Amino acid sequence: MSLRVVVIGAVALGPKAASRCKRLMPDAEVILIDQAPRISYGGCGIPYFVSGEVNRIEDLQTTPYGTVRDAEFFKTHKGGITVLSQTRATAIDRTAKTVRVEDLRTGAVSSLRYDKLVLGMGSSAHCPPIPGVELAGIGPATNLDEAEAIRNAVSGGQVNNAVVIGGGFIGLEIAVALGDMWGIPTAVVELAEHILPGFLSPALARMAARDLEDNGVTVYSQEKVLRFEGHNGRVTKVITDKRELPADLVVMAAGVRPNSEIAKAAGIACTERGLIIVDDRMRTSDPDIYAGGDCVSITNQVTGKPGWFPLGSMANRQGRVIGTNLAGGDAVFPGAVGSWGIKLFNQNAAGAGLTIESARREGYDAIVAHVEQIDRAHFYPDKSLMVLELVVERSSRRVLGIQGMNANGDALAARINALAPLLARKAVAADVSNLEVLYSPPFAAAMDIINVAGNVAENILEGRNIPVTLEEFEALWADRDSNDVCFIDTRVNRDAEHMVAKFGGRLLNIPQDEIAGRLSEVPADKPVVLICNTGLRSSEAQLNLAHKGRKNDVRSVPGGWSSVKKLGIES
Amino acid sequence: MSLRVVVIGAVALGPKAASRCKRLMPDAEVILIDQAPRISYGGCGIPYFVSGEVNRIEDLQTTPYGTVRDAEFFKTHKGGITVLSQTRATAIDRTAKTVRVEDLRTGAVSSLRYDKLVLGMGSSAHCPPIPGVELAGIGPATNLDEAEAIRNAVSGGQVNNAVVIGGGFIGLEIAVALGDMWGIPTAVVELAEHILPGFLSPALARMAARDLEDNGVTVYSQEKVLRFEGHNGRVTKVITDKRELPADLVVMAAGVRPNSEIAKAAGIACTERGLIIVDDRMRTSDPDIYAGGDCVSITNQVTGKPGWFPLGSMANRQGRVIGTNLAGGDAVFPGAVGSWGIKLFNQNAAGAGLTIESARREGYDAIVAHVEQIDRAHFYPDKSLMVLELVVERSSRRVLGIQGMNANGDALAARINALAPLLARKAVAADVSNLEVLYSPPFAAAMDIINVAGNVAENILEGRNIPVTLEEFEALWADRDSNDVCFIDTRVNRDAEHMVAKFGGRLLNIPQDEIAGRLSEVPADKPVVLICNTGLRSSEAQLNLAHKGRKNDVRSVPGGWSSVKKLGIES
Repeated sequence: MSLRVVVIGAVALGPKAASRCKRLMPDAEVILIDQAPRISYGGCGIPYFVSGEVNRIEDLQTTPYGTVRDAEFFKTHKGGITVLSQTRATAIDRTAKTVRVEDLRTGAVSSLRYDKLVLGMGSSAHCPPIPGVELAGIGPATNLDEAEAIRNAVSGGQVNNAVVIGGGFIGLEIAVALGDMWGIPTAVVELAEHILPGFLSPALARMAARDLEDNGVTVYSQEKVLRFEGHNGRVTKVITDKRELPADLVVMAAGVRPNSEIAKAAGIACTERGLIIVDDRMRTSDPDIYAGGDCVSITNQVTGKPGWFPLGSMANRQGRVIGTNLAGGDAVFPGAVGSWGIKLFNQNAAGAGLTIESARREGYDAIVAHVEQIDRAHFYPDKSLMVLELVVERSSRRVLGIQGMNANGDALAARINALAPLLARKAVAADVSNLEVLYSPPFAAAMDIINVAGNVAENILEGRNIPVTLEEFEALWADRDSNDVCFIDTRVNRDAEHMVAKFGGRLLNIPQDEIAGRLSEVPADKPVVLICNTGLRSSEAQLNLAHKGRKNDVRSVPGGWSSVKKLGIES
Repeated sequence: MSLRVVVIGAVALGPKAASRCKRLMPDAEVILIDQAPRISYGGCGIPYFVSGEVNRIEDLQTTPYGTVRDAEFFKTHKGGITVLSQTRATAIDRTAKTVRVEDLRTGAVSSLRYDKLVLGMGSSAHCPPIPGVELAGIGPATNLDEAEAIRNAVSGGQVNNAVVIGGGFIGLEIAVALGDMWGIPTAVVELAEHILPGFLSPALARMAARDLEDNGVTVYSQEKVLRFEGHNGRVTKVITDKRELPADLVVMAAGVRPNSEIAKAAGIACTERGLIIVDDRMRTSDPDIYAGGDCVSITNQVTGKPGWFPLGSMANRQGRVIGTNLAGGDAVFPGAVGSWGIKLFNQNAAGAGLTIESARREGYDAIVAHVEQIDRAHFYPDKSLMVLELVVERSSRRVLGIQGMNANGDALAARINALAPLLARKAVAADVSNLEVLYSPPFAAAMDIINVAGNVAENILEGRNIPVTLEEFEALWADRDSNDVCFIDTRVNRDAEHMVAKFGGRLLNIPQDEIAGRLSEVPADKPVVLICNTGLRSSEAQLNLAHKGRKNDVRSVPGGWSSVKKLGIES
């Protein structure tokens, strides 16, 4: 009798595991079940369907060559995989090795025998029990039905104001879709200190928020939704602890929760957060049961602790590993460092590993190198000014993470991708200084921004580069008329004169190449803050001063006026 | 007495080493000498100056903030580095620790004492002694004077036909500059089997050549220049072993040679090719002498053998390492895997490590996975069809190299950069399958092309995917009217019907999902070649046939019709 494999969940992980298993072991009986009518779709594409960039909902469900991945497809193209859609798995009996399933069309309940079981139930949008959440026009955007409802509402002209609850990936992607392609005034309400919490530093998050605000999406951080109000059963208003927002459409994007209830109920080991625990073969605590995708915890290769990375790419790669192992192979999924990317309006943000805040929360004594540099040879015509933040542990010099923003998203990916695999391999700052990114003027600088980030991190660790944080600079600058900080612009006169004229006596101009010779103009008894265009000449000037004995309280603004302007501290 | 550091060569490595040393050790006396009047320029930018994309030659010599890096700059901005330009180093006396220098303006010869010496003499264009090479209008394009001469000639309308000798990086970049921005009919003559020899497989090189040819640059490979002919002392013709080419401008780009004569004469250890040997601290055989950049050999981290990577990015990073070590630090430069990239017309090519041919030449028993896939989510609107070739050693499964082409160069860099650092760390094919590139539909596919390349390599190694090489396919296809090969298009009818109609009885159409059920139509006694759009469905069909016992002589065309068309085998 051939092996019978039952796979619960048919969005990303399930179809991949089933297909791979059937490919390697054509005699196996493979049954793929899902509660929805439509399966095997690119859920991550929903914001681009909402925006209209993806024309038809079927485009999210087709292969690259245009065939819809439905039950028939898995039967004919994938060697005879059986798909039971609109079928809900309600319980697992690990002793009898059966899954209880309910046919949602008929209500019929039956039992499915398995030899090997795969759990790929994914995650669901978390809908906090906010009063009024049941009003029409409020809902998540995680499955195809919800996506169609939103697209129909906006394309039908029914949405004059939208509110997105949650400034994580899905929330921001939906906000960009509504604002960019449909021109709908959209507000994002985020409970945390800033958008993309845990993924960007406050400074980078603020740059991201400015890109949104510049393009008609308003961001309200540290703000709590108290209730929804409506008229005739449809939402009309979002009431927060700070304001009222008009809304005909509310998208709930306040995070996702793993769909692991049946695993837990069956006694399969889960974490406290309800994530199914798997080993590096993607096996659960029951050796006949594999799990993967949004409902499992895998190793965070930076911290070494259990991590959670609910991303379609993880599900696909893990699905292949499970498929191989079901067929008697020995494939390993070692974990992840958490690479991510998001397209905003004119900017793109991306990262991998820990931010400086998350590193400190994890107990690391870490520093951050914040750098701005053109994303290719500075003399090359098509270019943009990229910002990167490299997070490094002080004692070991191990690189813990990288985050950045750039107008050209692919160029940003070219740096994040270069470093991500090394985070798992415990690279140190010097490895980043020497990181071999491909060089040619149209693609990179001879001393590329990623290498510079490594260099700056080393200089900070060795005490040669002493940055003020951008937040500190903001506070000091805001208070400039009452504090005694000496602000010096270290650019050449022609570059600095505009700002110096604007800020009267509060901003001196001493070009970096002159500062060592104009020591008497640099007060020795006051805090000194040096600033230039991107932080290059101010840190050089800071070093020039240090060499002249001026080591106390002289700091340089990382990213310079360029970062300061991106933050909106000055325009 | 302060340490005296003499640095020979002031283009890329020298200025970096000098600046870093002076920054860390401000009391050191640092002297930077160069035979040219202009120093510290981005030589790699020359093609973009020739094209006019870089407007003024000074742009190649300025900092990102617009200051020209001349002698004054190094004195004032870099803490007092002394620059002796137009000064040639003619000999090193290692016992006396002096360098003999000649002032090229006056002819005066003197001796410069050093405590530490840095050799950064770079490389020079190799000009083979071809008869007529002395004619006006013939020369390399490696320094600023040569660049200006070419730009003046083309902008002055004096060039009706150009010939570039050598199809390496500089040669192709110059050819693109002449063809793209000036519309000058340009021919590239390459002695080797194909352009970018050693960097691309014959198939990829042919795709690159087609991009050139489609845009007015003619490529003649395996062709030898016999002589140059001229009129009134100016070149008018290039005579090869196959044809005559009209030419008012001939750019010599037949490779470069290290400028290591004075090192060799001083008894410093060099390789047979004349490259200065350094350790991982960039120290030569003389502990007081460092060297780096185009004139040294560093470890090829793929082969473990001495390698040569004459690239501005290497020089910059090595210069920093030398500067640190001069100042008493302990910085390491571990070697390189040889990442590279080049912008052509509509396509960009890039790679790292070994090609399949170079791997075999190095003695590896290797396979290549040739894959085509869209460079982001296939449903995302702005995208292009990328091709990648992953080279893997059979026994160890170690990844030896990757090469590719794509219309979006940054997106190609995002894949090459992700893998390059892992080549040095002995990654295996499974690591590529699980490689964590950042995922979001605008930047990558959920199962990204780089992961697919790893998957395909594994499938080839396990005998599940049996590709015909593109060269074999071409030969079999060309001979289709007289051989007995059965060619089957495995796409769905609507996709295949055009080709099937075109090639009458020589191309069958059996869609992949039907092939297992239509076994009788697949001849068991003839070689079978399966083809689809990109190689996905043909390899799946090949596996379907294998499961039905048809394992002999059934092969799939990697990259499918897409690669076949890019090669020009069919249109």
